[in-house]
Amino acid sequence: MNAIGVDLGGTNIKAALVSEEGKFLRKKNVKTEVASGKEKIAAKIVAIVEELAEEDRSVSVGIGSPGSIDRKNGLVRFSPNLPDWLDFPLARLVSERSGREVFIENDAKAAALGEKWFGEARGCESFVVLTLGTGVGGGAVTNGQLLIGGGGIGGELGHMCVDPSGPLCGCGSHGCLECYASSSGMRKLVEEYRMRYPNSLIFREQSGGQFEAVAVFSAYQKGDPLAEIIYGKFVFAMGVAIGSLVNIFNPEKIILSGGISSSASLYLEKVKKVANEHTILSMMNSFEIVQSSLKENAAIYGAASIVFDRKQPHTSEVQ
Amino acid sequence: MNAIGVDLGGTNIKAALVSEEGKFLRKKNVKTEVASGKEKIAAKIVAIVEELAEEDRSVSVGIGSPGSIDRKNGLVRFSPNLPDWLDFPLARLVSERSGREVFIENDAKAAALGEKWFGEARGCESFVVLTLGTGVGGGAVTNGQLLIGGGGIGGELGHMCVDPSGPLCGCGSHGCLECYASSSGMRKLVEEYRMRYPNSLIFREQSGGQFEAVAVFSAYQKGDPLAEIIYGKFVFAMGVAIGSLVNIFNPEKIILSGGISSSASLYLEKVKKVANEHTILSMMNSFEIVQSSLKENAAIYGAASIVFDRKQPHTSEVQ
Repeated sequence: MNAIGVDLGGTNIKAALVSEEGKFLRKKNVKTEVASGKEKIAAKIVAIVEELAEEDRSVSVGIGSPGSIDRKNGLVRFSPNLPDWLDFPLARLVSERSGREVFIENDAKAAALGEKWFGEARGCESFVVLTLGTGVGGGAVTNGQLLIGGGGIGGELGHMCVDPSGPLCGCGSHGCLECYASSSGMRKLVEEYRMRYPNSLIFREQSGGQFEAVAVFSAYQKGDPLAEIIYGKFVFAMGVAIGSLVNIFNPEKIILSGGISSSASLYLEKVKKVANEHTILSMMNSFEIVQSSLKENAAIYGAASIVFDRKQPHTSEVQ
Repeated sequence: MNAIGVDLGGTNIKAALVSEEGKFLRKKNVKTEVASGKEKIAAKIVAIVEELAEEDRSVSVGIGSPGSIDRKNGLVRFSPNLPDWLDFPLARLVSERSGREVFIENDAKAAALGEKWFGEARGCESFVVLTLGTGVGGGAVTNGQLLIGGGGIGGELGHMCVDPSGPLCGCGSHGCLECYASSSGMRKLVEEYRMRYPNSLIFREQSGGQFEAVAVFSAYQKGDPLAEIIYGKFVFAMGVAIGSLVNIFNPEKIILSGGISSSASLYLEKVKKVANEHTILSMMNSFEIVQSSLKENAAIYGAASIVFDRKQPHTSEVQ
């Protein structure tokens, strides 16, 4: 079986025809152009799907979308990156127009399915994925099943509170993991310190005034004092959150995905040390923290895996 | 089908023969006498089982035990309340000696099963139970299945970190929910303030110098200043933790069980308010917080439910 995975992002729509063995048979990448409107974007996805599937009518489609998803009815309920997409029936529209089965899932949850089918979680019944990007997304798999929650929007691991006296988060809470471990959160932290460290390499390395989290990690490597502060907060927050996640899920693996995971070699061991200080004794060192091996294709693999997972769900015995 | 539920506590062993409809057909309560040794306690449980089952050979047994449980092999791996019980094959022993099927589960996870079968979670596929007693135990049910984790010891919700700069917890971490929402945690907090509030009603209401959490709540009702501090910390920690739990599990209900839940009317609304400040926007007010209706029988119901749940697992479709 082949499936089309569509990664719908605020900037790009990336898609591929993926085989069950994880081969990319054809690939396509277009600009999202959010301002062109949701109807145009849906039409764009239909065109991509037809181009990738060619004449193969058996191919189904998985869409990974940011935001809150109603997977049963195929709706994007709400997405901070796609304004005006309130309850937009994206999957239903693409399905009607393409005559294909179309599944939709939150992008971070799709990333977890991607790890299960093609990545670090193959053969793993219990794991957690954290996608460290503009925000922090999460996907938890327990007993082989993706955690969805009663209302269908659970798994928001980026909004675990790691410090209730921490900064205000975009979600309205304070001190969420996302405040320390996403590029949006790090940007805000860095701005708070600008007056005190105006000459930080972080500001000098910004390309065109655009903040990117990678600048923090490269400046950290050069001994930049502000970068060391932000890095320290990142490591601590990640450790505290992963400690709690271990206590809750007792997972075999914590898999880091998303742009910030590319710097994992700089922080993985330190995060693990802090996490081990925050687990109960019997779970110390019971888990691995690893970087996703799916790299820049993680989101497309994730989207295609929605199809594989719905069509061939692993049924695992309750322990 | 009837089942025997055995609640193994540090002080008492409480057991009952429970019908599938939730009727207590016979009941038995004996002292645990931990000092008499684990072999004697196992023998005691065998005797109770035979007395309750009478001659009915079809009756199976569920044991709810504090600590870390190896449910597959029927072991108590480790329990803070039962010293020297390292990898003690309690369920296997009781099974061999009684000739019956015996299941064992952590007591807080058993409490969650009790709510699913006989309590506030009937008909509910996604819920969380917090047992607020000497410690804080937890049980999360998602998609109708108890969260166990890859290593079998997940669901330690009492050790979510709610404030990393909080007090040292018995588990070695800092600022766990248990530090604020259990009687052991509250006792330590109260002691820290003794010099400052030597005349607090909390100390005067202690019976024989023995701290009980209920004294905090009754002193709070009388306007005692120290009780107000401890109460405030309790409400805040519960709210922060439940906010994170909602973000993670998107549950229909949070059910409070254990001794401290008997004062729920004094704090339920306030905890819900703080919890709503710590969920993402789309989960605000998506959940109920309720007090268990199983009261002092919750643990026995929970233990009996282990049997019902293993023998008739709800199989629910993955959403």
